[in-house]
Amino acid sequence: MVEQQTAQLDRVFHALSDSTRRAMLASLTLRAHSIGELAEPFDMSFAAASKHVKVLENAGLVRREVHGRTHLCRIEPEMLKTVDDWLREYRRLWEARFDRLDDYLRELQGKEKNHGRKNK
Amino acid sequence: MVEQQTAQLDRVFHALSDSTRRAMLASLTLRAHSIGELAEPFDMSFAAASKHVKVLENAGLVRREVHGRTHLCRIEPEMLKTVDDWLREYRRLWEARFDRLDDYLRELQGKEKNHGRKNK
Repeated sequence: MVEQQTAQLDRVFHALSDSTRRAMLASLTLRAHSIGELAEPFDMSFAAASKHVKVLENAGLVRREVHGRTHLCRIEPEMLKTVDDWLREYRRLWEARFDRLDDYLRELQGKEKNHGRKNK
Repeated sequence: MVEQQTAQLDRVFHALSDSTRRAMLASLTLRAHSIGELAEPFDMSFAAASKHVKVLENAGLVRREVHGRTHLCRIEPEMLKTVDDWLREYRRLWEARFDRLDDYLRELQGKEKNHGRKNK
């Protein structure tokens, strides 16, 4: 089970590691697209776009519906929740860093105010 | 600027697409580790671990400090915030899906209750 989830997360991160595939996902947030429509903004062949869609499909990020000769792609946003769940553990780390930076900046502002007073 | 950010996000997602590198990051949330310590749980050579660390470094997820012959690695969690920022746009999509699922389940429960009453 854990191994399956690990392999799934590998596929999701791999799918997201390409800016063309991320742009395709962004288009799919607006509405379903055919492969041809997904290829268009990149001046890309149907075959190349189809390969990218396959990677997104394997990661569970996109679902392809076949309507005759048209393949209609839809986003499956639930899979991105696995990324969000994975990130949760790390969120407290960067938040702690930003809090410390905040404290430091406040301290610095305090010192500057005191310095300003002394120089008056 | 945008192109730089795009390339950076490519590198971050690529670094995260490998379960060994994700496990290394998880170890680094506890404390700084030498390359040898990072290699240990995987029964991996120093050279192989060092390659993984290089990918994490290139993505800005890890910082390496050289102390004589020891390379000490620290996590840089701020870079994961870029993933979180990228996810934000999609979060509303899966949340909307879960809300709809919630409505549907509530509707279903309502029907079951009514059905139960009729059969009494």
